[in-house]
Amino acid sequence: MSRLRFNISMSLDGFIAGPGQSMENPLGLGGLRLHEWAFRLAVFRAIHGLEGGDVNESTPVVEESLHNIGATVMGRNMFGGHPGPWDAGNPWGGWWGDNPPFHHPVFVLTHYAREPLVLEGGTTFTFVTDGMESALDQARQAAGEKDVSLAGGANAARQFLAAGRVDEMEINLVPTLLGSGERLFDGLGDSLCGLEPVRTVTAPGVIHLKFARR
Amino acid sequence: MSRLRFNISMSLDGFIAGPGQSMENPLGLGGLRLHEWAFRLAVFRAIHGLEGGDVNESTPVVEESLHNIGATVMGRNMFGGHPGPWDAGNPWGGWWGDNPPFHHPVFVLTHYAREPLVLEGGTTFTFVTDGMESALDQARQAAGEKDVSLAGGANAARQFLAAGRVDEMEINLVPTLLGSGERLFDGLGDSLCGLEPVRTVTAPGVIHLKFARR
Repeated sequence: MSRLRFNISMSLDGFIAGPGQSMENPLGLGGLRLHEWAFRLAVFRAIHGLEGGDVNESTPVVEESLHNIGATVMGRNMFGGHPGPWDAGNPWGGWWGDNPPFHHPVFVLTHYAREPLVLEGGTTFTFVTDGMESALDQARQAAGEKDVSLAGGANAARQFLAAGRVDEMEINLVPTLLGSGERLFDGLGDSLCGLEPVRTVTAPGVIHLKFARR
Repeated sequence: MSRLRFNISMSLDGFIAGPGQSMENPLGLGGLRLHEWAFRLAVFRAIHGLEGGDVNESTPVVEESLHNIGATVMGRNMFGGHPGPWDAGNPWGGWWGDNPPFHHPVFVLTHYAREPLVLEGGTTFTFVTDGMESALDQARQAAGEKDVSLAGGANAARQFLAAGRVDEMEINLVPTLLGSGERLFDGLGDSLCGLEPVRTVTAPGVIHLKFARR
C-alpha cells in the first residue's frame, strides 16, 4: 500500500512557522528563515521554474522527498487564504498560481464543501469535508502504486501523526530560533507516533532527520 | 582565554526535563529518556565508577565534552535540593554523593550565601551570590588554561546564552517527545546567541549537534 510521507522544516526550538501568520505573510515573522536552505537549491528552484542554484548534501534528500509521490493531502490552513466559508463569488485558489508545483491530485481537509478546483499542469484540488481518514483514502486511491505526501500545515500534520497514519517523516532541522509561532509537536503527548529515526544528513543550513514507522 | 562550553540533552520537541521535577525525580516525568543514550556508554559509566557499557559514535563526542575542563558553573536548580535559603543545620550537599564526578572547582549561582562545600576527589562547590558574570570570572580563574563547563540547569543556561557568554554548545538531540516540561530555548527570542552549527554526529538513540561562536 502507498505510504504517507511528511516533510517539514522546523527550527531548533520546534517552530514550523513564525508568529503573526497572515495572507501577506503565510509563514509568519521570520518563517522564511526555515526555508532558506531550500530556496538556494537548484532542485528546489527548478520546481518553481527558476534556473541556477546549488547542489549540495540536501539535493538527494529533496529529490527523495519528491520521488514517487502520486497525491497530496493538506489542511485548509496550508491551502490558505482565509478561515471560514469560501467566498462564493471569488473563492481562494491557493498560494501557487495557475500552475501549482504539485502536478497530481491534492486533497484539502476543510469544513466547507466546494467543487474541485482544476488547475494547469495536472494539479486538481479536491475539497474533503468528511474527515482526515476519508482524505487519506481518496489520496491513496488517486496515488495508485505511488505514495501520498502530507503537505501540512501543523494542525493537519498533528492529526495524521496522532492517528499513527504517517509512515515517513523528514524533519529539516534549521539551526536557528524563532522564539514564538506555531509548534509542530504541541499536544502530541510524549510519543513519536510510532516513528523512529532512520537517517541523518548534515547539509548547509539544515540537518535532515528521517524517521520511519517501526 | 578559556572557553565556556555547554552540553545538554534535549528532546525533539525542545524539552531538557520532563514535567513535575522534584527532589525524588529531578529530571521530571520521562526525563530519564533524554539520557538513555549516555547511560549505556562505557565512557559515561566509567565516570560513575561502573564497568561495562557500549562504545559507539557517541563515545568521542562524550570524551571531547569531558576533555580539558578545569571548572564548572551551574545554577541553584541544577545543584538542587530545595528552593530558598539553605537549611543551616543540614544544608543540601548536591545530587552526587561524597565524591562527585566533577573533580574540579564548581561555582553555584544562588541568592543565598553559604560557605564552600569541600568534597572528596577534588570537587569543591563555591556558592556565588553576586551574579553570573562573577561566577564565570571565578570559574575562569580556577580553570586557568582549561575551559569552563556550563552544567545547567535550564534557567542558568539561558542566562549565559542570552548574555552571549557561551562559546560552544553541544545539543544531544534525542528522537523522542516529552510533550511538556522545561524547555531550553524559551524566552531566548529568535537568535541563536551568536552560535552557529559546526558538526553533527548521528549515534544510537541520539544526534549530537555542535555549535560554536562565530
